[in-house]
Amino acid sequence: MPAASPSSANADTRPRVEFWYEFASTYSYLSAMRIEDAAREAGVEVVWRPFLLGPVFLALGWNDSPFNIYPPKGRYMWRDLARLAGKYGLPFRLPSRFPRSGLLAARVALVGVEEGWVAPFSRAVMRANFAEDRDIADPVVIGELLAALGLPVDTMLARAQAPENKLALRAQTERAAELGLFGAPSFRVGEELFWGNDRLADALEWAVMGGTSPAGDE
Amino acid sequence: MPAASPSSANADTRPRVEFWYEFASTYSYLSAMRIEDAAREAGVEVVWRPFLLGPVFLALGWNDSPFNIYPPKGRYMWRDLARLAGKYGLPFRLPSRFPRSGLLAARVALVGVEEGWVAPFSRAVMRANFAEDRDIADPVVIGELLAALGLPVDTMLARAQAPENKLALRAQTERAAELGLFGAPSFRVGEELFWGNDRLADALEWAVMGGTSPAGDE
Repeated sequence: MPAASPSSANADTRPRVEFWYEFASTYSYLSAMRIEDAAREAGVEVVWRPFLLGPVFLALGWNDSPFNIYPPKGRYMWRDLARLAGKYGLPFRLPSRFPRSGLLAARVALVGVEEGWVAPFSRAVMRANFAEDRDIADPVVIGELLAALGLPVDTMLARAQAPENKLALRAQTERAAELGLFGAPSFRVGEELFWGNDRLADALEWAVMGGTSPAGDE
Repeated sequence: MPAASPSSANADTRPRVEFWYEFASTYSYLSAMRIEDAAREAGVEVVWRPFLLGPVFLALGWNDSPFNIYPPKGRYMWRDLARLAGKYGLPFRLPSRFPRSGLLAARVALVGVEEGWVAPFSRAVMRANFAEDRDIADPVVIGELLAALGLPVDTMLARAQAPENKLALRAQTERAAELGLFGAPSFRVGEELFWGNDRLADALEWAVMGGTSPAGDE
């Protein structure tokens, strides 16, 4: 393992995992609910990276979720999701619509990354979508989730919809494709990519074993 | 758990997992090499079910491996495979051709199911394809693997290519699609389907927890 570089008093010197997720993604739900606890236990810092799968899928030739395009995969996925939610002790209710647009939620989440509340906000959105069957594309729903976190709703929605924040989400989504991401959730440790909720533990282990520089090099 | 039904002296009363695999499939390689040890440890019987992914993929609109059709998925898969092989302590060499036809190997494997040598034969074929970069579509290669197991090569190849055995493989592949399989490896415990090498442990646990009738009901 590389020795920790000198760092300022405030710098987090733990190894890092980037968590790339999409609010419409079922397996992202499972990881979003688990990652902070699992990372804390492993001594790893989580960098939340909300992005949009839609443009990534379009580049692969899919204009819808592959779970809708390929019915046997979709049928299996819903059963698998229910089974895994049971295994993890997470609530799950079959959403009446899939996929829901995660665009607004992702824009708000980017503001949350800057302000430090991305993790609880993301969990609240995921729970709304996959455990409470609420429409996360509705600004009223997102507003209620923000309010429940004690955040100023109008201010946050305005910041989320500001042109520079829209561009930031577009840039993050383009970056995802550049990094070779093709699905969500994905985990990145240094240059190493891990795809799928199944790989969360492997990604954390890779981070702990020194796959990433504690000082960060972005 | 259901009580064990009365059974004959020779019947295996352990819970069962069906292992559906394809010789051209990279993740099937990882499972084929691990499943007997993992199942023995869990007290589960493995029912080997070789089948062909080609017709299953064609029904989904793919005339090639999705790892070839979607390059980012393919790039990731090869890296993931090398990483997982390292984790499991399995040999791995990037095959110079992918996918290779698993047709002949699957036909021979069906004979092995009847005769009780399907497991070591399947591991030998997988090793040839993914650790030794040998052409498993070549009858000479398959013959060498049979000979190394002490089996009569010409007899086995003739039985594998007999019309009734060809039909049996076709029927098994059609059955896979009927059961909702869309990829390999897949594991089946009773009516419950698990897809992917990642799910081997979950499938075994499901079997142990009583998801399957020990007496069998096929």
